[in-house]
Amino acid sequence: MEMWFSDEHTDNVKLSIRVEQQLFSAQSEFQRIDVLESKEFGRILVADGDLMLTEKDEFIYHEMITHVPMAVHPHVEKVLVIGGGDGGIVRELVKYDALEKIDVVEADPLLIEVCRKFFPQMACSMNDPRVSIFNEDGLRFVRSKSDVYDLIIIDSPNPFGPGEGLFTKEFYGNCYNALHSDGVMINQHESPFYKEEAFQCQRMHKRIIESFPISKIYQAHIPSYPSGHWLFGFASKQYHPLNDLDGVTWTLKGIPTRYYLPRLHQGMFALPAYVEELVKDVE
Amino acid sequence: MEMWFSDEHTDNVKLSIRVEQQLFSAQSEFQRIDVLESKEFGRILVADGDLMLTEKDEFIYHEMITHVPMAVHPHVEKVLVIGGGDGGIVRELVKYDALEKIDVVEADPLLIEVCRKFFPQMACSMNDPRVSIFNEDGLRFVRSKSDVYDLIIIDSPNPFGPGEGLFTKEFYGNCYNALHSDGVMINQHESPFYKEEAFQCQRMHKRIIESFPISKIYQAHIPSYPSGHWLFGFASKQYHPLNDLDGVTWTLKGIPTRYYLPRLHQGMFALPAYVEELVKDVE
Amino acid sequence: MEMWFSDEHTDNVKLSIRVEQQLFSAQSEFQRIDVLESKEFGRILVADGDLMLTEKDEFIYHEMITHVPMAVHPHVEKVLVIGGGDGGIVRELVKYDALEKIDVVEADPLLIEVCRKFFPQMACSMNDPRVSIFNEDGLRFVRSKSDVYDLIIIDSPNPFGPGEGLFTKEFYGNCYNALHSDGVMINQHESPFYKEEAFQCQRMHKRIIESFPISKIYQAHIPSYPSGHWLFGFASKQYHPLNDLDGVTWTLKGIPTRYYLPRLHQGMFALPAYVEELVKDVE
Amino acid sequence: MEMWFSDEHTDNVKLSIRVEQQLFSAQSEFQRIDVLESKEFGRILVADGDLMLTEKDEFIYHEMITHVPMAVHPHVEKVLVIGGGDGGIVRELVKYDALEKIDVVEADPLLIEVCRKFFPQMACSMNDPRVSIFNEDGLRFVRSKSDVYDLIIIDSPNPFGPGEGLFTKEFYGNCYNALHSDGVMINQHESPFYKEEAFQCQRMHKRIIESFPISKIYQAHIPSYPSGHWLFGFASKQYHPLNDLDGVTWTLKGIPTRYYLPRLHQGMFALPAYVEELVKDVE
Repeated sequence: MEMWFSDEHTDNVKLSIRVEQQLFSAQSEFQRIDVLESKEFGRILVADGDLMLTEKDEFIYHEMITHVPMAVHPHVEKVLVIGGGDGGIVRELVKYDALEKIDVVEADPLLIEVCRKFFPQMACSMNDPRVSIFNEDGLRFVRSKSDVYDLIIIDSPNPFGPGEGLFTKEFYGNCYNALHSDGVMINQHESPFYKEEAFQCQRMHKRIIESFPISKIYQAHIPSYPSGHWLFGFASKQYHPLNDLDGVTWTLKGIPTRYYLPRLHQGMFALPAYVEELVKDVE
Repeated sequence: MEMWFSDEHTDNVKLSIRVEQQLFSAQSEFQRIDVLESKEFGRILVADGDLMLTEKDEFIYHEMITHVPMAVHPHVEKVLVIGGGDGGIVRELVKYDALEKIDVVEADPLLIEVCRKFFPQMACSMNDPRVSIFNEDGLRFVRSKSDVYDLIIIDSPNPFGPGEGLFTKEFYGNCYNALHSDGVMINQHESPFYKEEAFQCQRMHKRIIESFPISKIYQAHIPSYPSGHWLFGFASKQYHPLNDLDGVTWTLKGIPTRYYLPRLHQGMFALPAYVEELVKDVE
Repeated sequence: MEMWFSDEHTDNVKLSIRVEQQLFSAQSEFQRIDVLESKEFGRILVADGDLMLTEKDEFIYHEMITHVPMAVHPHVEKVLVIGGGDGGIVRELVKYDALEKIDVVEADPLLIEVCRKFFPQMACSMNDPRVSIFNEDGLRFVRSKSDVYDLIIIDSPNPFGPGEGLFTKEFYGNCYNALHSDGVMINQHESPFYKEEAFQCQRMHKRIIESFPISKIYQAHIPSYPSGHWLFGFASKQYHPLNDLDGVTWTLKGIPTRYYLPRLHQGMFALPAYVEELVKDVE
Repeated sequence: MEMWFSDEHTDNVKLSIRVEQQLFSAQSEFQRIDVLESKEFGRILVADGDLMLTEKDEFIYHEMITHVPMAVHPHVEKVLVIGGGDGGIVRELVKYDALEKIDVVEADPLLIEVCRKFFPQMACSMNDPRVSIFNEDGLRFVRSKSDVYDLIIIDSPNPFGPGEGLFTKEFYGNCYNALHSDGVMINQHESPFYKEEAFQCQRMHKRIIESFPISKIYQAHIPSYPSGHWLFGFASKQYHPLNDLDGVTWTLKGIPTRYYLPRLHQGMFALPAYVEELVKDVE
């Protein structure tokens, strides 16, 4: 059947995926959530019309946003995941035995429920005893915390609409306060390729470097995301993402991955000249 | 106006780009060639309905296919470019003063003419005195050469249709013979993400390692290509792409680039776990 | 959300409708059945990827295929509907008190079930005591009948795939035999505009005039069908569609309609010059 | 090649046509004009992104807007065409030997030029000695005329954007004045099917009946126009479109047509029940 979902990358570019079947559609208090079945990408999670993740390549995003800091910070015990109701980051986190506490702040309980049902291979670890789920506003949650976490992962949607607050200077400052003195903050950092997103990229980076002494950007190939060239931010109070990488220790933990390897770590932080320029402009 | 060009990545996925205007369309002896004007990607070159390159991101492909070997091989003098009638690789090559001879074998003269006219910033160096253009079949051309080149760059389209011969074991063997004893062969190597292309990837790699003692794969982010995750093959008789990199010497040459930097070099060869597995399967 | 269903009118033309939600999808023994919700057309029934009918304009098709013969034939008592599992024709037929028996031959029970559930305003009369539903093959059913019906309505899909047999000369001959000596046969007759369908149109007409002494074509505006210009065939043993029209009697019955009126009757049979030529070619 | 032009019928419905080639594109003082080549519809004229006409079915529109009044009004000598720079109406008009004068008021000279070049079979009669072309504003032109024409044909685009003034009460009043005491005014009258256009339809009709004692609507099947069900307005000071039809005289003139025939005339004015209601609502 000719039924296609299009993710609009810009007003003039879209990625279109043939839909075999729509599995779910509902409006929550926060957003419209759809689950589509496709041949090429498996199941697709859509929020307010935007592609959030696909069964086929979510592993790239979730491994990259999780294992990069975990291979650098030597003793992460308490983690805060802001957003992340889909469970992908939690699935990666629970692979670390040393982790004691994983707080997930996801405003929308329907999102969690939908992912449990339609993406069981992703949401499989949300019941891990170390995980606490808070259906609260991420901004407010962080504001009340001080010196609590070793790692904060910001799994925010794009900086338009409801997630806007997760891209403000004030929010990054609150994350700084919520972290221990050697804490690390990771955030999804948009793509550097299309103009509007590149601009968001710059703005985010500018705001983060105002709060954190160390702030670096790394990248991954995520085919279902706009341009396929996706960035992440590594902001840190003390650890340097390259100098403090301990690949050997990480490897000995025997964490199974399909994208991340310590061998890739340095290359991820080596940005193409044009991306480096983009970032430098605001440093 | 709602006029969109779609590049079909698979039967079930397509990238669609709004077309401002079609600037050119003609059928040559070899293929249908179209030039489209778009807001997001600038001018787009299309051959037989497939997106070949865009003004906005062709620099990534052309820098990556050219500067990676040029930063490794210490004294390239004679280069053969198979395909490459668009002039993008030549534009990068002529930045090297030490180069003496650049042979371009492009079967289709119309392609060259179209690129000269519609992509002047790309085809600008086709008149360099070191460049010789041969409107011949690439396979036949290489078969007649022995111990002539330091570097062969295979700028082939995809392995379906007319370019098919450029993906055979016999062809790679002939390239081996056409190279000096320390020669390097680079080829565009498709994407590892979608099934059909991943299979082509494997097949190519398998055929190349049968001819060359050193054969490595590297990658770049090319947003307009399927999945955005594009691979290149580095096949070599003697030089190792990482061990023999001389970034300092390369940097001193002062070659201006917008993507490639020696700092990125190692990271480019660090493949994600799932791509490495794909490649390993045939090694 | 950018989710669109496209009905392919030809390889080079398609009507695309934004889908709010997919309400149903299943594969029956005979076909894949989908129900889509759209803003513009309401619910849409799709079989094997082809648009079958829409909530917004199904009334046009069903009124036109039903009331035209009912306003001509003076005493219809027994009707056979071949196909028509959606219930739209039955809904129109039950408006006639004089009707005694309505046999519906619909091979696919799932289609009936789906329409009962998702198109209640259309399938509402399938429980009328005069209606008998036969989940059988239409060809075989008709073959066994002789001199039974006053009216046969062939509500067939297009002449490709499973419905093919409903477009053969043999089938029309069997319908002839199943009718009383003053019986009328109506069939959906495709569109005259696009080449391939125009050809089917001709072929159908040619086959029908070989069986029936009177065979005329009439038309309606059905926006959701290819070209919007849709034809029906009126084949008859005795009654002439114009000369035997009794509009006054029909009007006195007080049948509520939204498209058909006896006033339109003559105009419906007045075909544009180019359509008349198409039809004449085979007469 | 997958290059498609879409004509947006509503925000939620579009007709998409595969484009073989774009033949022309330019911005005039008034509008952007594009000419596309397609397999299914031949050449397509596009203004500001909207489909204006196609080579394949323009004959329907132009015959219907011209021959209907010409078969009713017994002695048309002077005609005013407002809009109509494409030449289609003129081509039909010059078939009448008795016509003495055809004034065409087309604001945009580029439109005329483009149609002469790319649609020669349509613009072929623009050089007829009886034709005068005025590159002026239609509203202003009509305002200065009194008791001059037997027939005014309003070949306006849709009532959004630059053509808006051609849909006002004042304009229809001026047309009334520009006509002789037995004059006829014809206008394209949008489609009754989609909500927004149906509303325009009503509004137009309401405004016309305020100026003309006789005002009737007729219809045709135009596949490339939204819904394929297109309306025309017949407004008249004296002649009735049905009572005063003289089909025999018209036929004797031997005017070649592919859609219009006097035999169809009455049926064209027989509107489906739902369209009649729409119109009645404002009468």
